[in-house]
Amino acid sequence: MPDRRAFVSLATDFGAAYTGICAGVVHRIAPAATVLVLTDEITPFDVREGAMLLRQALPYLPVGVHTGIVDPGVGTPRRPVAIETGRGDVLVGPDNGLLVPAAEALGGIVRAHVLAEPAYRLPEVSASFHGRDVFAPAAAHLATGVDVAALGAPVEPLPLDVPPPSVRDGELAAPVLYTDRYGSLVLGAGPDHLAAAFGPLPHGAVLALTWTDPDGREHSARVPFVATFGSVAIGEPLVWVDSSGWLGLAVNQGSAAGAFRVAGTLTLRVAD
Amino acid sequence: MPDRRAFVSLATDFGAAYTGICAGVVHRIAPAATVLVLTDEITPFDVREGAMLLRQALPYLPVGVHTGIVDPGVGTPRRPVAIETGRGDVLVGPDNGLLVPAAEALGGIVRAHVLAEPAYRLPEVSASFHGRDVFAPAAAHLATGVDVAALGAPVEPLPLDVPPPSVRDGELAAPVLYTDRYGSLVLGAGPDHLAAAFGPLPHGAVLALTWTDPDGREHSARVPFVATFGSVAIGEPLVWVDSSGWLGLAVNQGSAAGAFRVAGTLTLRVAD
Amino acid sequence: MPDRRAFVSLATDFGAAYTGICAGVVHRIAPAATVLVLTDEITPFDVREGAMLLRQALPYLPVGVHTGIVDPGVGTPRRPVAIETGRGDVLVGPDNGLLVPAAEALGGIVRAHVLAEPAYRLPEVSASFHGRDVFAPAAAHLATGVDVAALGAPVEPLPLDVPPPSVRDGELAAPVLYTDRYGSLVLGAGPDHLAAAFGPLPHGAVLALTWTDPDGREHSARVPFVATFGSVAIGEPLVWVDSSGWLGLAVNQGSAAGAFRVAGTLTLRVAD
Repeated sequence: MPDRRAFVSLATDFGAAYTGICAGVVHRIAPAATVLVLTDEITPFDVREGAMLLRQALPYLPVGVHTGIVDPGVGTPRRPVAIETGRGDVLVGPDNGLLVPAAEALGGIVRAHVLAEPAYRLPEVSASFHGRDVFAPAAAHLATGVDVAALGAPVEPLPLDVPPPSVRDGELAAPVLYTDRYGSLVLGAGPDHLAAAFGPLPHGAVLALTWTDPDGREHSARVPFVATFGSVAIGEPLVWVDSSGWLGLAVNQGSAAGAFRVAGTLTLRVAD
Repeated sequence: MPDRRAFVSLATDFGAAYTGICAGVVHRIAPAATVLVLTDEITPFDVREGAMLLRQALPYLPVGVHTGIVDPGVGTPRRPVAIETGRGDVLVGPDNGLLVPAAEALGGIVRAHVLAEPAYRLPEVSASFHGRDVFAPAAAHLATGVDVAALGAPVEPLPLDVPPPSVRDGELAAPVLYTDRYGSLVLGAGPDHLAAAFGPLPHGAVLALTWTDPDGREHSARVPFVATFGSVAIGEPLVWVDSSGWLGLAVNQGSAAGAFRVAGTLTLRVAD
Repeated sequence: MPDRRAFVSLATDFGAAYTGICAGVVHRIAPAATVLVLTDEITPFDVREGAMLLRQALPYLPVGVHTGIVDPGVGTPRRPVAIETGRGDVLVGPDNGLLVPAAEALGGIVRAHVLAEPAYRLPEVSASFHGRDVFAPAAAHLATGVDVAALGAPVEPLPLDVPPPSVRDGELAAPVLYTDRYGSLVLGAGPDHLAAAFGPLPHGAVLALTWTDPDGREHSARVPFVATFGSVAIGEPLVWVDSSGWLGLAVNQGSAAGAFRVAGTLTLRVAD
């Protein structure tokens, strides 16, 4: 189904220039493909942030070849992989868990193959820039219709290492997974965990938050659970469910990361 | 005239990733459209900066559908709109004044409609990410030939709130509208205001500037009015008219924002 | 050969918005061209960094029209040029050495012409934004098939001003050319200089580095010469040859720029 794969996206922690080089490699090999730089701004080496982003973003993109590169292990023996999804996409990147949550959001993993075939790499593969020499060429060749199985041996992708939330009756302890561009904290929990801890939670319910800051001090705050930023005054905090179904702590037109300084885990209870 | 609208641009304060998601939504709905991310770097929530940028940029882009999203009011009842211009473009974004100066630069507002029709939104509209769920889908459908009037009821767009300059004989007091990437200050005045205050001003005329800094201290400086950065030595300040017709205060290969620290308004007189 | 030039890339120090305007100008004039923003993140006014980047990047891009704009001299009489390469590309930008190392990497300079013909500029040329008014229009017209010679008179491009390394038996003193996004230092020397100074250098050989910091203090360190970041522990330094053949000083998952603070020149010897 080459037509369905003539769309290639790139998401990296490279910044503009090195991502632009990868896009150029795709354009050279697959001149008819539409190429979108989804992002070049993932925090360097932050596999978890990249994985959260791909999981959030890819369901909104066309079915295609989606390249994700956050690769602290470049130059070591970690495997490069291509993962075919239930929706018909192929995800290309390092086998470090980066692609797996997105694959699950795209209908699950149908099959995965290691990127080993030299014909689908650049002639010279550098030690450090596999985005250019391995991942972008593989994505481009897939976009021209090459089958995933032609890339190399089948492989079972490694999962992403994410700490689970702790759910008890009346209490939810959720890890802070990453901080988005607006300083909002994305928590490793969703509406299901919220319901398991608290039952149905009405709009405006006040939550009692407790956390430890990076200096080891304990803090607490009362924050309403609301649907939108606009439900609280400017500068006021809120707990909400973000647009991809993750629980978040935010400040309306401000930075929750600056205001709360949470080290690791945020605990939520219903306030008295 | 679908052909004339097969070009879609996006200008946001989202950073790369969330803008990339919007671009992906456009590609899904309008796969034949050319999509340009004009910018993803508008200062978050700075409607005025975004409006100045769109006004400056859009006349240089192809006639098309231009999406501008700086939207502090997302999740509140502010209206999403599409504005058709005299040049034949459609501008899509929040009805907070962001799009209006650009529409005026593109031949004026011909008609405007609210984005209400569910068929031209994503099936689920989140509380916080209207760029993805409302604006990008509307832009994409417009690019495929949907008429502006099909989106919703006619509406009169709200104007942008910008303070006017104060012009007297021999004195021009201009608000600082924003600071560009090079630290140059863009003033809310143009050559017409300059001529009204001073008559014809020769190249190299020395202006006496006065201003108050953020700590309340008064300052003054003598700065030449010149045509180009290269007309003054490296590190020296200049007053000039920028490439889109706005008065500016700059430092050749330096930062006027750092050197001058103007709080609000800059007053210009011809030096003795 | 218009087909071979229907690919246009842009590399600037403008940030997103002003680069997006240039891309828009190209789309207007050459609607059939594929346009890639290679980078908008070159350090402002850093011609050397831009030249190093173009030299590294362009060989991986399709044959096409490649626009490079880092132009401290905009508004002064420096010439705008188009350089045809042995590979068949045309490089467009200011005649300040920015394009020359890339042209050499693309088969050398075949011919170069100044951008003088008004028909291939915008109708109004501003004093400050030649990217929009001169370079992008020239690139777009070249992409539609205009011959380089039609742009203006032939010209011999100025070379890039880069300090050469100092090579002696057992010692290599290399200038720091720029610091990449990861804080790695790129040195103005390659494997040939390394071989000239030390003969064949085995993987893992320990080098004795000496340098002066910006405060005038002398420093030294022992750093292994290895092939990949993964050859040293996280947080440990390495000397290596980067993916485009330049010597570099890096820290695995860290910043060499922060750890070493080299002012100007790094001297390498084989450790006892």
